[in-house]
Amino acid sequence: MHDKYMLLATCKDKVGITSLITSTIAQYNSNILHLDHFTEYDNKNDTEGNLYLRFEFEKVDGVKAALETELASHNITYELFDSSVKTKIALFVSKEDHAFNEVLLRVQREEIPAEIVCVVSNHENNRHFAESFNIPFYYVPSNEEKPVVEQKILDICAKHDTELIVLAKYMQILSDNFVNHYEHKIINIHHSFLPSFIGANPYKQAWERGVKLVGATGHYVTSDLDEGPIIDQDVIRINHRYNVQDLRKTGRHVESQVLAQAVEYHVLHKVIVTTGNKTIVFA
Amino acid sequence: MHDKYMLLATCKDKVGITSLITSTIAQYNSNILHLDHFTEYDNKNDTEGNLYLRFEFEKVDGVKAALETELASHNITYELFDSSVKTKIALFVSKEDHAFNEVLLRVQREEIPAEIVCVVSNHENNRHFAESFNIPFYYVPSNEEKPVVEQKILDICAKHDTELIVLAKYMQILSDNFVNHYEHKIINIHHSFLPSFIGANPYKQAWERGVKLVGATGHYVTSDLDEGPIIDQDVIRINHRYNVQDLRKTGRHVESQVLAQAVEYHVLHKVIVTTGNKTIVFA
Amino acid sequence: MHDKYMLLATCKDKVGITSLITSTIAQYNSNILHLDHFTEYDNKNDTEGNLYLRFEFEKVDGVKAALETELASHNITYELFDSSVKTKIALFVSKEDHAFNEVLLRVQREEIPAEIVCVVSNHENNRHFAESFNIPFYYVPSNEEKPVVEQKILDICAKHDTELIVLAKYMQILSDNFVNHYEHKIINIHHSFLPSFIGANPYKQAWERGVKLVGATGHYVTSDLDEGPIIDQDVIRINHRYNVQDLRKTGRHVESQVLAQAVEYHVLHKVIVTTGNKTIVFA
Amino acid sequence: MHDKYMLLATCKDKVGITSLITSTIAQYNSNILHLDHFTEYDNKNDTEGNLYLRFEFEKVDGVKAALETELASHNITYELFDSSVKTKIALFVSKEDHAFNEVLLRVQREEIPAEIVCVVSNHENNRHFAESFNIPFYYVPSNEEKPVVEQKILDICAKHDTELIVLAKYMQILSDNFVNHYEHKIINIHHSFLPSFIGANPYKQAWERGVKLVGATGHYVTSDLDEGPIIDQDVIRINHRYNVQDLRKTGRHVESQVLAQAVEYHVLHKVIVTTGNKTIVFA
Repeated sequence: MHDKYMLLATCKDKVGITSLITSTIAQYNSNILHLDHFTEYDNKNDTEGNLYLRFEFEKVDGVKAALETELASHNITYELFDSSVKTKIALFVSKEDHAFNEVLLRVQREEIPAEIVCVVSNHENNRHFAESFNIPFYYVPSNEEKPVVEQKILDICAKHDTELIVLAKYMQILSDNFVNHYEHKIINIHHSFLPSFIGANPYKQAWERGVKLVGATGHYVTSDLDEGPIIDQDVIRINHRYNVQDLRKTGRHVESQVLAQAVEYHVLHKVIVTTGNKTIVFA
Repeated sequence: MHDKYMLLATCKDKVGITSLITSTIAQYNSNILHLDHFTEYDNKNDTEGNLYLRFEFEKVDGVKAALETELASHNITYELFDSSVKTKIALFVSKEDHAFNEVLLRVQREEIPAEIVCVVSNHENNRHFAESFNIPFYYVPSNEEKPVVEQKILDICAKHDTELIVLAKYMQILSDNFVNHYEHKIINIHHSFLPSFIGANPYKQAWERGVKLVGATGHYVTSDLDEGPIIDQDVIRINHRYNVQDLRKTGRHVESQVLAQAVEYHVLHKVIVTTGNKTIVFA
Repeated sequence: MHDKYMLLATCKDKVGITSLITSTIAQYNSNILHLDHFTEYDNKNDTEGNLYLRFEFEKVDGVKAALETELASHNITYELFDSSVKTKIALFVSKEDHAFNEVLLRVQREEIPAEIVCVVSNHENNRHFAESFNIPFYYVPSNEEKPVVEQKILDICAKHDTELIVLAKYMQILSDNFVNHYEHKIINIHHSFLPSFIGANPYKQAWERGVKLVGATGHYVTSDLDEGPIIDQDVIRINHRYNVQDLRKTGRHVESQVLAQAVEYHVLHKVIVTTGNKTIVFA
Repeated sequence: MHDKYMLLATCKDKVGITSLITSTIAQYNSNILHLDHFTEYDNKNDTEGNLYLRFEFEKVDGVKAALETELASHNITYELFDSSVKTKIALFVSKEDHAFNEVLLRVQREEIPAEIVCVVSNHENNRHFAESFNIPFYYVPSNEEKPVVEQKILDICAKHDTELIVLAKYMQILSDNFVNHYEHKIINIHHSFLPSFIGANPYKQAWERGVKLVGATGHYVTSDLDEGPIIDQDVIRINHRYNVQDLRKTGRHVESQVLAQAVEYHVLHKVIVTTGNKTIVFA
């Protein structure tokens, strides 16, 4: 494959935007490899919509600068990525290792084209696994004031030029301050049920309710919401023979798969967070 | 296939129950075709469990009476069904016809081995479909006091010896009094999402939240809970291109399938409601 | 929603095609509502690829004619549809009614935005259902020479300006001659298993082999292949308790859902058949 | 949980077998925790069926010996397991590590209650991972005559008292002689598609055919069949944007999950292979 650029762009929908971008790309003789164009209008109000765009196009001299000028002059919010540059991930984990193992191994196998630059944990038990792949492991216990702990972690992330934080069952709540440093750049996984169970011990609640599906939701972390924009979800079917431990085990399996998938979508630059706080995933 | 009996039985778990039942059946030279035996102990307390049993065994002279005597003398709650006798269903529907059509057609095709004895609706629009299959259709509008309306419906159900009421998108809330007449004999379907959305216009809420799965839950209706014991659940994957109408459409598809499946499980006598208000489905 | 045009276009991939189309549309002040752009290169040979495009854009005076001139002059294969015009479907069915019912009812509910212009069958049993919706039903028995029978059917289809033939369990093999009249305009459904079973009684074979999933494939019918381009597939999980009849029943359920979905994709003009005889489904 | 016994039993179906077993267990005051009873009659011939039984019951002094005497005297084929004794697994792997990693990590997390006694590989690349968990790793290259190589491997397996061989993408074909040493004690995983593709490069074939689902089948290895009894299957949905590499990646994900699930079913003694060469999985 040739090197390519990936463009994610958002603006108020109006006539001519896509024509503008495609003609700029064409002027530089760069071929468009993929293009997803999605407009969303509020259900009630048909007059004001948003346009979400994703392009993959050949890396040709000059096209990037020209495009950036064009996008800026039209007030289009965008991110532009080079396919040869891998996203730098800081992987956060507490004790449970399932989601952590899955993400780390998929990156190792190059199934997720990213680089894990460090592992941060409030437990020591996953050090060995991380270090066996020569990934720096930072033990940051939660025994100090949260601002102190979080500053240490922010320093570690900064030191490694972290671009994405993946919470692979990191069981500490991040402060608004922390989250604001990485807006829409922190991915988390949590259990999901139909119907959902809020509060302590959701698997126990789900077992008592006799649910037939166990699910997981991968989402961005935001400061002002319990849950941020959903990236991916999946379920596994269970039956009455599953006890609470079996539900937890099944939950781990679906969590691992969904988190890894969500991370893959992100590092392939397939996700746009909308103004309405949900995601467009050009899967 | 030979005619057979189906037995659903529940009691406190103790040594010897299954031995007792199987030896009684064997004494009459009746062969057991299926046997599901499930014990459930509370997670905390290991000393007191419940036993749930389902048997299918050949219909042989004398075995039924002997078994009933045995079960009664040991304080076992049970239901005993004859496979040659079809469950009589009253199908309730409002305007939307998707779940109604699906259940009715599966019964017509003998995919669900039951008999639809009547259709009850607060709208006229589904009369034609019901009557084209020679099923009595009762229009019972909701323009009177609820007790009056419900008494009319109870009379209709009684007249047709109704054994199971299926709410195929019947958009009227049934009173406790009504529900108590058909304990664990009313099946309903409702939408389900991960995470779930309570209140008005759940599909709009789900769309705004950007969910990636649309689901449905088939359950028994109970008087003292918002939702009774879950019989079956399923989901269909969606993406950001689905607008609110598309979500509703997808919801209808999964609702139809799940309701029909739940009804099938019930009329095959595969479902036991536990003391803990959930179901054991020997699927 | 405003009326809109849908464009499906295919050509050799080269720089500038999308720019050309989008700028033509923009010139007429028509807004693009959706745009899917997909290029596919042979895995080995990176130099020659194909471009597949789907546009939805506002219906504005003049844009259609201008676009058609442009597309023709650049040797682009295309189809251009008006969203206000429904696809005319001839629904073919033999005895089994499940897929036939599902497609017909989804069209009635406007879940599938199409018009069923006639039903053709080699059996009489589905006449009543079709006619209860005022759809013309043609009984064309298979007791004559195939060319004679097929000519009758072609005449019926022509009389109703049929644009799409849906084989909803129509158990007659269509000749190459017939298929050539409706290239990529005939959709069929067939069972699918992992692993697949060829020859007589596939459900018996699947049962003997103990498969855990029952599937279905919706595809276009082509003359030169056993199976044409796949539009959609799905599976339902089963277990050892399912006998051969249960497998058939499950097969019917998944067939109905997959066929209806495939038809919906087609009439929403979301499917392009590639030169390599597979489909691009912009789902 | 108390220790318990698991019994898998198979015999010609006749009246009284389950009564016999349950009364023997009850005599020793052992409580039955689970009981699955399944009879299967040939579809055509109703007179000769097979009975498949699975019991879990409390480990009480004397019950095991009494039961074994009883089972033997009635010509019942059986296996009796003690829940406190973990199955000893030899894990075979070639170069690709995904299924190997998944099974090994699930065993480490005690999600699969088994013991991996050794890893056998014809490549060195997975040595580090195995040894980091203190599991003996044997490099047995394929550069000698197959009988010589296989004898080495059989010796390794014997040395470790191997009870189950798991082929986690072990890309060597095992001889009939080898397979006969471990009848229904070797589990393999292979890709599955609807429709299936035989021969070289199935993912390329599947891509060319435009399949919409990628699947995997976990099965026992037998000498006289291409594929032995199926234990589990699953699929993942894909779309036209997946190239051949993406199909392979998706195939790896579903292979890992299905293999791990199949191994779990086996070591929980939930699988019986029937005389008809398929499985009963009491899942």
